Amino acid sequence: MAGNTFGKLFRITTFGESHGPALGVVIDGCPAGLALSEKDIQPYMDRRKPGQNQKTTQRKEDDRVEILSGVFEGKTTGTPIAMIVRNKDHHSQDYSEIAHVFRPGHADYGFYEKYGFRDYRGGGRSSGRETLARVAGGAVAAKVLSELGITVDAEVTELCGIDVTTPEGQALADDRILALRNEQDSAGGVVTCFVNNMPTGIGEPVFDKLDARLAQAVMSIGAVKAVEFGEGTRAARLRGSENNDGFEAVVLEPEEFDEDEEENEAGDFHSHEFHENDDEDELQEEVFQLTSNHAGGILGGMSDGAEIVMRAYFKPTPSIARPQQTANENGDNVTITIAGRHDPTVVERACVVVECMTAITILDALLENMGVQMDNLKAIYPID
Amino acid sequence: MAGNTFGKLFRITTFGESHGPALGVVIDGCPAGLALSEKDIQPYMDRRKPGQNQKTTQRKEDDRVEILSGVFEGKTTGTPIAMIVRNKDHHSQDYSEIAHVFRPGHADYGFYEKYGFRDYRGGGRSSGRETLARVAGGAVAAKVLSELGITVDAEVTELCGIDVTTPEGQALADDRILALRNEQDSAGGVVTCFVNNMPTGIGEPVFDKLDARLAQAVMSIGAVKAVEFGEGTRAARLRGSENNDGFEAVVLEPEEFDEDEEENEAGDFHSHEFHENDDEDELQEEVFQLTSNHAGGILGGMSDGAEIVMRAYFKPTPSIARPQQTANENGDNVTITIAGRHDPTVVERACVVVECMTAITILDALLENMGVQMDNLKAIYPID
Amino acid sequence: MAGNTFGKLFRITTFGESHGPALGVVIDGCPAGLALSEKDIQPYMDRRKPGQNQKTTQRKEDDRVEILSGVFEGKTTGTPIAMIVRNKDHHSQDYSEIAHVFRPGHADYGFYEKYGFRDYRGGGRSSGRETLARVAGGAVAAKVLSELGITVDAEVTELCGIDVTTPEGQALADDRILALRNEQDSAGGVVTCFVNNMPTGIGEPVFDKLDARLAQAVMSIGAVKAVEFGEGTRAARLRGSENNDGFEAVVLEPEEFDEDEEENEAGDFHSHEFHENDDEDELQEEVFQLTSNHAGGILGGMSDGAEIVMRAYFKPTPSIARPQQTANENGDNVTITIAGRHDPTVVERACVVVECMTAITILDALLENMGVQMDNLKAIYPID
Amino acid sequence: MAGNTFGKLFRITTFGESHGPALGVVIDGCPAGLALSEKDIQPYMDRRKPGQNQKTTQRKEDDRVEILSGVFEGKTTGTPIAMIVRNKDHHSQDYSEIAHVFRPGHADYGFYEKYGFRDYRGGGRSSGRETLARVAGGAVAAKVLSELGITVDAEVTELCGIDVTTPEGQALADDRILALRNEQDSAGGVVTCFVNNMPTGIGEPVFDKLDARLAQAVMSIGAVKAVEFGEGTRAARLRGSENNDGFEAVVLEPEEFDEDEEENEAGDFHSHEFHENDDEDELQEEVFQLTSNHAGGILGGMSDGAEIVMRAYFKPTPSIARPQQTANENGDNVTITIAGRHDPTVVERACVVVECMTAITILDALLENMGVQMDNLKAIYPID
Repeated sequence: MAGNTFGKLFRITTFGESHGPALGVVIDGCPAGLALSEKDIQPYMDRRKPGQNQKTTQRKEDDRVEILSGVFEGKTTGTPIAMIVRNKDHHSQDYSEIAHVFRPGHADYGFYEKYGFRDYRGGGRSSGRETLARVAGGAVAAKVLSELGITVDAEVTELCGIDVTTPEGQALADDRILALRNEQDSAGGVVTCFVNNMPTGIGEPVFDKLDARLAQAVMSIGAVKAVEFGEGTRAARLRGSENNDGFEAVVLEPEEFDEDEEENEAGDFHSHEFHENDDEDELQEEVFQLTSNHAGGILGGMSDGAEIVMRAYFKPTPSIARPQQTANENGDNVTITIAGRHDPTVVERACVVVECMTAITILDALLENMGVQMDNLKAIYPID
Repeated sequence: MAGNTFGKLFRITTFGESHGPALGVVIDGCPAGLALSEKDIQPYMDRRKPGQNQKTTQRKEDDRVEILSGVFEGKTTGTPIAMIVRNKDHHSQDYSEIAHVFRPGHADYGFYEKYGFRDYRGGGRSSGRETLARVAGGAVAAKVLSELGITVDAEVTELCGIDVTTPEGQALADDRILALRNEQDSAGGVVTCFVNNMPTGIGEPVFDKLDARLAQAVMSIGAVKAVEFGEGTRAARLRGSENNDGFEAVVLEPEEFDEDEEENEAGDFHSHEFHENDDEDELQEEVFQLTSNHAGGILGGMSDGAEIVMRAYFKPTPSIARPQQTANENGDNVTITIAGRHDPTVVERACVVVECMTAITILDALLENMGVQMDNLKAIYPID
Repeated sequence: MAGNTFGKLFRITTFGESHGPALGVVIDGCPAGLALSEKDIQPYMDRRKPGQNQKTTQRKEDDRVEILSGVFEGKTTGTPIAMIVRNKDHHSQDYSEIAHVFRPGHADYGFYEKYGFRDYRGGGRSSGRETLARVAGGAVAAKVLSELGITVDAEVTELCGIDVTTPEGQALADDRILALRNEQDSAGGVVTCFVNNMPTGIGEPVFDKLDARLAQAVMSIGAVKAVEFGEGTRAARLRGSENNDGFEAVVLEPEEFDEDEEENEAGDFHSHEFHENDDEDELQEEVFQLTSNHAGGILGGMSDGAEIVMRAYFKPTPSIARPQQTANENGDNVTITIAGRHDPTVVERACVVVECMTAITILDALLENMGVQMDNLKAIYPID
Repeated sequence: MAGNTFGKLFRITTFGESHGPALGVVIDGCPAGLALSEKDIQPYMDRRKPGQNQKTTQRKEDDRVEILSGVFEGKTTGTPIAMIVRNKDHHSQDYSEIAHVFRPGHADYGFYEKYGFRDYRGGGRSSGRETLARVAGGAVAAKVLSELGITVDAEVTELCGIDVTTPEGQALADDRILALRNEQDSAGGVVTCFVNNMPTGIGEPVFDKLDARLAQAVMSIGAVKAVEFGEGTRAARLRGSENNDGFEAVVLEPEEFDEDEEENEAGDFHSHEFHENDDEDELQEEVFQLTSNHAGGILGGMSDGAEIVMRAYFKPTPSIARPQQTANENGDNVTITIAGRHDPTVVERACVVVECMTAITILDALLENMGVQMDNLKAIYPID
């Protein structure tokens, strides 16, 4: 029990079932002084909305988020930010037939075994609608990060086994998805998430390493079956000499300081150190950068200054229209046909969920890192 | 900060650096009444000991664990169990040359950036020796699980890209590892972990799903770059009709009840329900089982009764003897040669670490699940 | 930040400001299978409602609680139970004059210093209305406890320094309160809370002792300045021989087993042990009981089977109508007169809040205790 | 279970029994860069050592603390700091007689009921020696605080009911204690703890208020039966107009800025604001201060800049030499005489324990507060 809170300092607690009165989130630990309104949240909600193209479900949702607390005169106050989304589009009749059936690939059986009974309407707590609350929470985290210059972006890079990072691949995949819909079947895919402009050294060894916490965050999203960083599974097949990322010290000329820094292949510059150049009696800035990024921006569980690259592998949508063999609570073996409106794939809609879980995890790690050096404490709490 | 505790109810807190006085663990939340002595722990310590074959480092370690608290008259008392292992084999001189260098693929840079300085002796806190403490803690968790009939086993299934589940593959991989040693290089691999006889419904939706917590647990092990369950990354390429696991209700004849239950392909039987057979006026036992196990034993974040199958992908050992380009703390670009004794691969030694982190996570989830139904509370706290 | 969650396994997360859209609570970790509806909560809400007698504020509130999640077909499902109460009775104009003033005895200054600005309407998050959410959460905890036979009751035992456990004292205190209202002043008092039928051994040494957790729970209620157990402050003035509570073994005759057990002075019977009586070849039940209850039912941080007796000392209401000297955010020293409607005392309304925080803490401790012995694990997870 | 960790960001996990191999603590979350060695810890250990005067036990202990991890080249590294103290002075024979007896006023019964059996040697985990680990942890917290200019001091203010803040009172109490020793009895007392130079706004509403967390911290010390702040229990008997503390804005002349600021009655100055004085075109510093300190330095759960004043009430030592009636595990009613060497009072030795638990709580709250405003995040993570 008590698994509905995520985060230590920036914490989200979510609630709600697919066909209950409402879903929502309480954010505790959002720093005070962030400009925030529903307008910051709604675009994130809309990104996970179904019915946006022919690959996703036609169910029309109108998920309006309402902020109930924690914002005053347009700014966060430091107190909990509660947000809810009312459920409107109930078609409980769609689900009555499968109320006591264990749908293959769904959490029905787990809920039944764990709690003794379950809210069977639309999957109840295990519905994809649960991610609404994650997204509302993540939208706030992402806005805090943006104020620190940190960006989090996720995109579909593979769909039903096809690389979709090219227009040709995307077209191929679109065709395949349509074919699967006709065949009453479904597809999975891969979401790749990128974090840029991360400060270095973020993440807490040894159990709360940044990659470990991100792994939990992303694996907790329904349908994710694998998580990897950088080379990921491929790293197991590389040699050390291939997989190691070297460091390089680079001296920036003074005129470069204020300009937009160029990115190198491995990610943004980071870690600025100044030391005097005796010959010219002039201050030079020196930074460390990686000469490659096989690690995916996290080394020893801490951000290393390069772009964070994480991949989440989604299984195919378990709700398929074709008949399936399974059992019901009474111990009868039955054939079911799942009616309703279901996506052949949820991967596109899942991008914003991956982004949001990533943003929450990153912000939480930044907050946890704040007191890690005596000098930071002295900066925040100066002696008069 | 404060990332050195794992678990909620069965919690391990670990400490210690590679070349400090000692490493250790404090276990809080171990149930009272478990028979326990150092003899239960030492075999686990020995399994992660280097120098056991030519593939691993020749450094001779003699890691004797000492229990400092929490055990009385051979049984756990319910109070914290502290265990330490003294460090003996210090060769600090081996490391003096690289004290201020950021070794490629190591946590040196992260520690330096995060804390401002670091214990550079043997990797300090980021040394592989850190896993000693995890193993001591996991050995206790595994013993508790074994009393409940639950087993956790991990094995190397792939080494330097070669499937080693057959003698031929193993022989091939052995040759490759020797070659890599000669080439002053290293290899990664895959550890597969199996959990059997799991009760169903274990794991806490939505953020503390069993797979999410396992992902954190295993990703927190140094060198792990990917974690997957069941079909894992392959699930993203399957159709829903291929990936879904159906349920099947099976009626056991009375005489079968007390016998060892057969396993089916998908895992052990589970979830016993009795209902009367009117015709024969006889009690029959009915169980649900899965007809396949693509999910890897975890569905909707909860155990589904099938065998749990998890894979951890380890990167190649970053400490390689061949010269590497990198930078040092002074901002010099340097070529380093890592002396010392280093494994071409750590994957074999890592099996016990994966097992132990898994056992800790599973036990923690079992404890957290205990109060999930009113009936359980009434069973433990009967009204007089 | 992140201080709005209480509890480990039965957790409440509260949110909301006095004049924001709504206040509410999310309960995570409520066992599944508890019959629950708004009708179980509303009576608790009504008990903390102001305007019930002349001693309390005349502000009319109509605090209707709505359950948003976690209940299906009249029973808790094991998923989070969210409840909200909409704010209706906004008189923001009452507060405009003191928006930037640090009211004596209020949290205004702390919020201003901590967060940089604050929601000044009606005290914002530090308003007494915040306790609405605690009460909604506690009502659920209390219902779970009642199913286990455990009762939690709080009453006012002292008001403005007068013992009100007798009708004469109550009458005296009523007069005093009216006089204070006329003098534009206020009074504090003492709430005593009793817990009966507690199982023994509940509470987690050494930091999460039952009294330590209760102390946090109750001290976190606004206006509480002291918490004590049993003899409390008086224990510091007693001798060991006066303060120690002895144990007594009592043998119950068989016919007493099924009857309602009598209470002795020190609390209910507890801890049943059976042993054979050789003479009569008959099973006898034996229980331990305390011969006195100076400790207040908690010994060594664990329940000892006697009645738990805890006292919370409330300061006088800081909002008084008479003029007060203080400063505002601009650095001006000002005289303020707090208009609005304010209680001369909140102690009566606070009883239900003390009860609710106690119930939450007790239930959380019961859940945490469930896995404390190997035998409990084996009972919940029997090997097939 | 799992009650042996205290704190969120600065966390101590303690372990050890009175007569086991060792006691100790693991500190997680100590900021890196603090100069630290055993010499910083030992004086704290010595302050809680018995046998220092005739009022305390004659048992000679030699509690040498050893740091096992987390310190390198004389400074904390940010990794866990483990410290142990070996047990040496075992007189297990003293305890054999009472191994299965429930001593009045001790935790014996609770441990027996909770865990099914217990380590009876010297009280096991419930021994006063447990506080050794708290003190080792608190010594580190206190050193961090001292670097921030914050002081924590505790003293005995009442002993066996006598005010000991005057030499006459102290003399009277000394006589009383000797008399109690002769009468084979014991005494309690009151420890008052003062925190000075606290930054304002520290503490997390609503459940982790500073006073709420301190109440848990101090109530978790064995023998504490009441905790209060400022007027404490007396506040319940004051009028609002008597108990409220007003704020005052004070303008400091420029020459005063760099000098040692004078304290006023209510505590140190705090909260500096600068604003321009148009007439003199000169910067003036303005501070807020309280005109009284009835609240004890904590208002609305946050530090208000005045001196924090907290009192802990200790019960008389339960181990008294005179015969006492009680029961044993077999259900026999017995008379016991506790041999061994026991303090007539532990209050003097407890001062350092109160200080240490306070220091840990204060430091933890300071760390938690660091990310409470967006401006703090921007200060620690500046955009390049």
